[in-house]
Amino acid sequence: MKENTIFPKGNKAPSEYFTGTAYVNMLIADTNKKYNTTVYDVVFEAGTRNNWHKHSQGQILLCTVGVGYYQEKGRPAQKLQVGDVVEIPANVEHWHGAGLDSSFTHIGITPRVAENITEWGNAVSDEEYHSAIKGK
Amino acid sequence: MKENTIFPKGNKAPSEYFTGTAYVNMLIADTNKKYNTTVYDVVFEAGTRNNWHKHSQGQILLCTVGVGYYQEKGRPAQKLQVGDVVEIPANVEHWHGAGLDSSFTHIGITPRVAENITEWGNAVSDEEYHSAIKGK
Repeated sequence: MKENTIFPKGNKAPSEYFTGTAYVNMLIADTNKKYNTTVYDVVFEAGTRNNWHKHSQGQILLCTVGVGYYQEKGRPAQKLQVGDVVEIPANVEHWHGAGLDSSFTHIGITPRVAENITEWGNAVSDEEYHSAIKGK
Repeated sequence: MKENTIFPKGNKAPSEYFTGTAYVNMLIADTNKKYNTTVYDVVFEAGTRNNWHKHSQGQILLCTVGVGYYQEKGRPAQKLQVGDVVEIPANVEHWHGAGLDSSFTHIGITPRVAENITEWGNAVSDEEYHSAIKGK
């Protein structure tokens, strides 16, 4: 299967916020604050997911390669495929990551950066991950 | 050549702002204003470009399929390929569109929507277009 890669792989994502291996390529760092928006490409290797976390102003995901999952705390996980768009609401605890047998790439957009605080929680355990994606 | 399509083609773009045929798929309309950001996928058929225009808070383009061009008034056009990211500065008159022999797709991100005014100008004439992309 040809990988639909658009952006080069970035640096390895910080291991304290991920289980497995992910790469983040900052596309719009907005260091001079002109857009109040950051944009980045995230590649999750198969089985990789980020920790439970929430954003005080929400986040947008555009799914570009592979198969992934998005789960809000207390709700069933949602399977993600190329072309899916996820609107993550403000202050909702969630995780996103790859499927067990597929890498996954999404563009992430953080709006209202100046006031958008991310709070990181626990890792998504193997039990939580496997239970979330089971049968999907 | 396989087209690297991610999002389905949207509605035909308004002909008063485009020369040729383009399609816009609104991915994040932000109708409830929670992100203050809109996101959309634009497909330009070969030879198609939008009119000269400017955004009071700028715009971000992520190039995903094909070959295109971006030109700021009074400057040489820049050739755009898959994986290119364009940071369009505030209040700079410009156009973007496809190459003559290739369709072109970009994701567009409009930041600071509440205060981001777009002003449309004249169409990019055939002479302007051909002269801008010549030899690139």
